[in-house]
Amino acid sequence: MIIVLKSNATEEQIKHIVEKTKKLGLKPNISRGVERTVIGLIGPEDILRVTPLEIFPGVEKVIPVLAPYRLVSREFKKENSIVKINKDVHFGGNRVVVIAGPCSVESDKGLRAIARRVKKAGATVLRGGAFKPRTSPYDFQGLGEEGLKYLSEVGKEFDMATITEIMDTRDLDLICKYADIIQIGARNMQNFSLLKEIGKTKKPVMLKRGMSATIKEWLMSAEYILSNGNFDVLLCERGIRTFETATRNTFDINAIALVKQLSHLPVIADPSHGTGVRKLVGDVAKASIAAGCDGVMIEVHDSPEEALSDGEQSLVPKQFDDLMEDLKKIASAVSREI
Amino acid sequence: MIIVLKSNATEEQIKHIVEKTKKLGLKPNISRGVERTVIGLIGPEDILRVTPLEIFPGVEKVIPVLAPYRLVSREFKKENSIVKINKDVHFGGNRVVVIAGPCSVESDKGLRAIARRVKKAGATVLRGGAFKPRTSPYDFQGLGEEGLKYLSEVGKEFDMATITEIMDTRDLDLICKYADIIQIGARNMQNFSLLKEIGKTKKPVMLKRGMSATIKEWLMSAEYILSNGNFDVLLCERGIRTFETATRNTFDINAIALVKQLSHLPVIADPSHGTGVRKLVGDVAKASIAAGCDGVMIEVHDSPEEALSDGEQSLVPKQFDDLMEDLKKIASAVSREI
Amino acid sequence: MIIVLKSNATEEQIKHIVEKTKKLGLKPNISRGVERTVIGLIGPEDILRVTPLEIFPGVEKVIPVLAPYRLVSREFKKENSIVKINKDVHFGGNRVVVIAGPCSVESDKGLRAIARRVKKAGATVLRGGAFKPRTSPYDFQGLGEEGLKYLSEVGKEFDMATITEIMDTRDLDLICKYADIIQIGARNMQNFSLLKEIGKTKKPVMLKRGMSATIKEWLMSAEYILSNGNFDVLLCERGIRTFETATRNTFDINAIALVKQLSHLPVIADPSHGTGVRKLVGDVAKASIAAGCDGVMIEVHDSPEEALSDGEQSLVPKQFDDLMEDLKKIASAVSREI
Amino acid sequence: MIIVLKSNATEEQIKHIVEKTKKLGLKPNISRGVERTVIGLIGPEDILRVTPLEIFPGVEKVIPVLAPYRLVSREFKKENSIVKINKDVHFGGNRVVVIAGPCSVESDKGLRAIARRVKKAGATVLRGGAFKPRTSPYDFQGLGEEGLKYLSEVGKEFDMATITEIMDTRDLDLICKYADIIQIGARNMQNFSLLKEIGKTKKPVMLKRGMSATIKEWLMSAEYILSNGNFDVLLCERGIRTFETATRNTFDINAIALVKQLSHLPVIADPSHGTGVRKLVGDVAKASIAAGCDGVMIEVHDSPEEALSDGEQSLVPKQFDDLMEDLKKIASAVSREI
Repeated sequence: MIIVLKSNATEEQIKHIVEKTKKLGLKPNISRGVERTVIGLIGPEDILRVTPLEIFPGVEKVIPVLAPYRLVSREFKKENSIVKINKDVHFGGNRVVVIAGPCSVESDKGLRAIARRVKKAGATVLRGGAFKPRTSPYDFQGLGEEGLKYLSEVGKEFDMATITEIMDTRDLDLICKYADIIQIGARNMQNFSLLKEIGKTKKPVMLKRGMSATIKEWLMSAEYILSNGNFDVLLCERGIRTFETATRNTFDINAIALVKQLSHLPVIADPSHGTGVRKLVGDVAKASIAAGCDGVMIEVHDSPEEALSDGEQSLVPKQFDDLMEDLKKIASAVSREI
Repeated sequence: MIIVLKSNATEEQIKHIVEKTKKLGLKPNISRGVERTVIGLIGPEDILRVTPLEIFPGVEKVIPVLAPYRLVSREFKKENSIVKINKDVHFGGNRVVVIAGPCSVESDKGLRAIARRVKKAGATVLRGGAFKPRTSPYDFQGLGEEGLKYLSEVGKEFDMATITEIMDTRDLDLICKYADIIQIGARNMQNFSLLKEIGKTKKPVMLKRGMSATIKEWLMSAEYILSNGNFDVLLCERGIRTFETATRNTFDINAIALVKQLSHLPVIADPSHGTGVRKLVGDVAKASIAAGCDGVMIEVHDSPEEALSDGEQSLVPKQFDDLMEDLKKIASAVSREI
Repeated sequence: MIIVLKSNATEEQIKHIVEKTKKLGLKPNISRGVERTVIGLIGPEDILRVTPLEIFPGVEKVIPVLAPYRLVSREFKKENSIVKINKDVHFGGNRVVVIAGPCSVESDKGLRAIARRVKKAGATVLRGGAFKPRTSPYDFQGLGEEGLKYLSEVGKEFDMATITEIMDTRDLDLICKYADIIQIGARNMQNFSLLKEIGKTKKPVMLKRGMSATIKEWLMSAEYILSNGNFDVLLCERGIRTFETATRNTFDINAIALVKQLSHLPVIADPSHGTGVRKLVGDVAKASIAAGCDGVMIEVHDSPEEALSDGEQSLVPKQFDDLMEDLKKIASAVSREI
Repeated sequence: MIIVLKSNATEEQIKHIVEKTKKLGLKPNISRGVERTVIGLIGPEDILRVTPLEIFPGVEKVIPVLAPYRLVSREFKKENSIVKINKDVHFGGNRVVVIAGPCSVESDKGLRAIARRVKKAGATVLRGGAFKPRTSPYDFQGLGEEGLKYLSEVGKEFDMATITEIMDTRDLDLICKYADIIQIGARNMQNFSLLKEIGKTKKPVMLKRGMSATIKEWLMSAEYILSNGNFDVLLCERGIRTFETATRNTFDINAIALVKQLSHLPVIADPSHGTGVRKLVGDVAKASIAAGCDGVMIEVHDSPEEALSDGEQSLVPKQFDDLMEDLKKIASAVSREI
């Protein structure tokens, strides 16, 4: 950590800071420049996080040197982590995993019809929401446990792994019982109670990036899970909120490339939410694989006109079939397979 | 709701849409322009929310006419709502309420020292976090129930109402037992499970705006609480996330003025988080009262150098004393009192 | 255009609006709903743009139905526009054009060394700035006409088309004399004097998206050029400004896909500025081609350590060689060539 | 400037950096920590700006210590600058200056009617655009020189100083001839050619913040003007672009308070553009004065229904009269006058 002093900092103020940091067990190193004096602190930065050096008299700013996350970083673990869901579905290896299914589980029969199609086209994980985060209290909120049962049954029937979103710590046991992967949605990325509880399980979890979360904050939220003992974490980019209104979100393709470099964890792309517009989903899915993601998650509905949520961004099965052909070509162009 | 058709929409497509909307119980009204045909739908918009008309063949876009919130709007209730905490503390009336205290409750003694000062200067509500949402799992996470006890005791000792943040549905009973007002933090503004549970209580609640929430989404989250039966809601603007990095957040002064016009609920300003910089807190607090807010919440710590969280934005008691004098003058200039 | 009235709009106010719009030559169409009355206006929307209907008594909001741009839209021209620079370089066809070169022209010799390498690797357009937009007045501002001369000479020597940025209407003749394509930088996207002057020439122009411009505003700026008579316009996505600070800009991959659908003009990707980080340039270039762009522009410098601008995002020739091999594979996967 | 090295930086890489920086005339100071080695550089930072140390082998990041602007900073000049327009109008002193008038000059007679009213209510500077930056090429572009003449004549008639926007370096002489203050609009904040040319004049200039400009970039643009010799610069906050769509822009009240601390230049608030909504203008004007601004600029039109631009955010004279009474009370509450 580096402390930049104000141009008019006094010797007494410098002394106060030096003493304080020594007391914390750090070794201060003073550089006196023409316009500014700078104090470099040698020692563990964690000690400093709880001390607000910014407000010590004479301090202009404090600059951290290290990234605040450890366990999720490439420095902690150099090689890619492989998150194994079952004997066939491994995230982070050479195969790009495709997750597909409806936004919400709406019925047993509907889910089965969709699963049959996406499985045939090459998807190996089935998605479907049972508890839905909806902006309006008047919108469809999901089928709850009934939806979880359908998801579990249909997943087994088609030999697909399953993923569903959690919204409340109280539902954790229920969801662990029925699904193979727990999804933490964008709105709960900084629901720290939830992160801690999931960290204590051994269940694979997909952590979506918050819609206004920096990459650093996203990795810090993953750190919550790893630091509680659960290392089976997938990171999912799903678009961020910007000033642009022509799309529902702005898919951050830079983040796909950067997070692969910063972290050893698998990175998943969600172009359905990342664009919010059905006719853009395919192009952004292709782009994501070209940029290096380890999986894509795509909303598919066999009758989007009747969908109870997110119909406007769902592909119909025929579109999904065609897209899978395109994705295989892109995967092959970057020496991967689907 | 208005449906704008594509320039090449066919008569068959128009017919399909008209039939669908009639089946939903709406009355479609077709206007054929030179370049576009537009269908206006007369009837309750709620019916339409669950039907993704955007994806019907021939549709270019769908435009809602009504705001999606009802109970929180001025149209539902014209006069200002008064949220009464106790016989002295009423939010939404002529008196601007001042909430003050440390970011976190750190000790019995420390809290008492701060309470004594802020009470004397004119604050009537004492703040203090017992469960802290922290970006890093390695940072101080709060004292938990012990902190709630201190807050309750000190509040009683100085005859101040109390407010503290909730982070988990499982803590609701505990917090209701100890505090007078429940705070929902920015990161939980769309924790819908939490909103619903709090909506079922009769406890006054302060809902902070999410750091990337639009005003509409913020009001929709309040709608979750009101629609579950709890009308004692305070709305708190605490700054939004923008590209600017010179301040921690960008305080949205427009939102203070606009939300007062859109909603009957009291609006509170949090300039401590809204700026994140101690030397800006005072000016933005003054601005907020000038713009019409019903309360301000300010972090005060008697020894910010030792604070376990947010020391860099806390005022010391002397600064708070001076600021209160300034705030009284501004309040008077807009015909209110503190 | 659609006018939504306030819930308490009076009959007199409605009459006033109806009369006003009739006077403008439009045909108003009134729909009276349960909660709101809505007036649809049939006739040319351009007439309405200059009349601020928002402020008429009784009006709640005014909603445009049509996109405000015409000449740049797919509705105006269905097939892709081909912008021909010379007999070999055509933007918008099956071949993805690669533009490469240094950020700034720094010397005759340096430019030649870079051009030799990028030409050999497959680039067909040479970039190089002579007038540089720099945030600081104390930074290198470019070689001016001397730089233009070098660019022109080296371009001819290696049989490459050339592109350079304009910053001032007064330099237009000079730049037209030396370069094949004029670049309008992000900071000048809404320099309307410049857009109009360039619109009056017949010179091909590449219009970069402003760093906080919506897609609509970007297309409107292109409309300025087309409506003045110049149809040889390339649209260049170069990243937008968001809250994320880990990258210099957020490359908007959605925009690549969407603008190809909204407009007939060729779309170029600039991953060098779109990321601002050398190690991300390659992945985002690949993603852009996968998403459908018609060209990529990449900064290359043979000695980035000595570059007078943007060294941190420039590739060295060896990296560029390798990237070109990757880009050819991606192009092939989407049935295009480089 | 501080250089943070990668955890695996080699001694050879460190030596290379040390030699390079010594060659530049700087004194490197190496601190070897447990996890990172850091090199502090003592000497003028300007030398370093042109050397991209970020890309030297072994470097992880480079952190500047000093703000990149000098002449505009409080460190360069401690006391407030007073920008004198004429004997009565001084910006930066105890009196808060009010600038008012229509968005565009539309006619001689219309301007006179507005000027009479705003002068009477207490405004001392008359605004009016003759060259208008419009997003659409099909919108009203201003009256040009005819508009400037009207502005000059009406200003003299009512003994008001005048301000108008420049959009093209070629218009500089013309505008200097007719107006007292040149306005640089948000879209031209980084039109560096224009900044340099205006810097060479002695004309007072009001520099609006770009809609996505950081405070640092805004001050750097002012630095362009001061470093060319013109110190009579006013800084105008006019709202920034964020994700919020309920208002046209987000007025950055933090910036008002912060820029007063960072710079000695006068700060002006433009609540008309900062909100884009007429019914919010008054509250945000009051807030701005409470936060410490030196002037406010407000759009007033006597017949907004007929205004050729920005009618939706203009006050009518009666509203302006009432607002002036409110502003005087707020000014008085912060010990200033209007």
